[in-house]
Amino acid sequence: MKDFTIAVGQWPVVSRKDENLERAEAFLRDAAREGAALCILPEMFQTPYELDAMERAAEPADGPTLTRIRDAARDLRLHVVAGSFPERDGSAIYNASFLIGPDGAVMGRHRKIHLFDVSLEDVKVKESAVLSPGDAPLVADLPFCRLGVAICYDVRFPEVFRFFESSRVDVIALPAAFSRTTGAAHWHLLLRSRAVDCQAYVAAACPAPLDGAKYVTFGHSLVVDPWGTILREAGEGSETVIARLDAKLLERVRRELPVLGHRRPDLYDRWRAVRKDQ
Amino acid sequence: MKDFTIAVGQWPVVSRKDENLERAEAFLRDAAREGAALCILPEMFQTPYELDAMERAAEPADGPTLTRIRDAARDLRLHVVAGSFPERDGSAIYNASFLIGPDGAVMGRHRKIHLFDVSLEDVKVKESAVLSPGDAPLVADLPFCRLGVAICYDVRFPEVFRFFESSRVDVIALPAAFSRTTGAAHWHLLLRSRAVDCQAYVAAACPAPLDGAKYVTFGHSLVVDPWGTILREAGEGSETVIARLDAKLLERVRRELPVLGHRRPDLYDRWRAVRKDQ
Repeated sequence: MKDFTIAVGQWPVVSRKDENLERAEAFLRDAAREGAALCILPEMFQTPYELDAMERAAEPADGPTLTRIRDAARDLRLHVVAGSFPERDGSAIYNASFLIGPDGAVMGRHRKIHLFDVSLEDVKVKESAVLSPGDAPLVADLPFCRLGVAICYDVRFPEVFRFFESSRVDVIALPAAFSRTTGAAHWHLLLRSRAVDCQAYVAAACPAPLDGAKYVTFGHSLVVDPWGTILREAGEGSETVIARLDAKLLERVRRELPVLGHRRPDLYDRWRAVRKDQ
Repeated sequence: MKDFTIAVGQWPVVSRKDENLERAEAFLRDAAREGAALCILPEMFQTPYELDAMERAAEPADGPTLTRIRDAARDLRLHVVAGSFPERDGSAIYNASFLIGPDGAVMGRHRKIHLFDVSLEDVKVKESAVLSPGDAPLVADLPFCRLGVAICYDVRFPEVFRFFESSRVDVIALPAAFSRTTGAAHWHLLLRSRAVDCQAYVAAACPAPLDGAKYVTFGHSLVVDPWGTILREAGEGSETVIARLDAKLLERVRRELPVLGHRRPDLYDRWRAVRKDQ
């Protein structure tokens, strides 16, 4: 990894798709002005996080949403993790994030692997009623870092991060739309602990909360370093979070606390064989 | 799991073994008075956490240390996770924790799997120079819960906790001797996140710090619930941490946020095959 500047975008996602796309483009222009090389958009950045809205906003990968983001990435010479939007592919809809290069080309895609079917007192969602799941986390080599991408609820599944760790990922981008309830309980905890476990930077983008929405998001988009320290964090409003990522710090953490070299995969394989896995 | 009371012991471990064993016995009496059914002692509860001291304090499983703890467990009718002490077995020494039943019998043993070989600015330790590693985490059925036991640095290896989760462990006991530096950075973070990942209670016992010691421990022994909330936490002095564990809360967290049912082990196996694991 080389030192570089990352930008994480946060704004309230509204029902009008076009307005959300304008916000995304404005964020990318803002990030470019700040010297960012990599920009992260939130989960469902062009539609409110509601199942019926997702169905209506779904588009194929060559639809207007990704075309506009690709155009902006090319015009501004940015790498962009295009948060996520509902990607229509045949009869299926995926919660999909695309990695775009500074030439506007699609470098990779992550479809959310773990669908959010939960029944908390004030958060009831069943993504699987509308969405289909992906089957592998995205790992991609950029000129300045190795990047892993996962989406929101994927963060609760340590195997995703074991894959990132063993792939020697330097930076993890996590577009998310945590609810205010689960965010208050677990947002900082999960993002910081994945950074520490993987000894990698974690950058997470969440839409700003919109009072009165059916599903109120958490905001607090942030960047964590490999020691678990929060470098920069948004509040609840619109914000471009800018952080400089330091390659030396990453190298120092991995040298001083060499957990990766202390792993015992021979044993782990044995344990998996004896335990009753689901 | 049934509701029950857990006790976690914290005191400064001194160089005189006998004094440490008296402290351990006093803690168990205290815990019994408070109605505890399960008691957790810290890592290296009978010797300072220094390699040469560990060598001197090493004893076989049938030596005076474990005999005294077994006697106390039987007299007080307690389940005890006997923190850890340096267990001599032939020419090898292990950082070993024994689970003792209320009849004084040994129900199981955990030998620390991941040895702490680190070189932080103010924490330099090489356990592997003196200790040999164990090879599997302990899981045991008590009359009131299924228990997992791991020791200190094991907490940094998510596979240990995947094993606990897939074994449907209700409570994880973690004797530890975190340093003040790594404790301030990661103690609460790691313990809370393992509780959330496993949807289990976590009880961690760390010796109280002793100013002037070669290796200054962190203290802050604590009990976390399956939602990641700290139920009770010690400061830096001697303390018996008592917490009531609620079976209904455990059941509710697992029902409302059913991550275990959302795991996709078929995919994880595939990822392991393609990634470059160490």
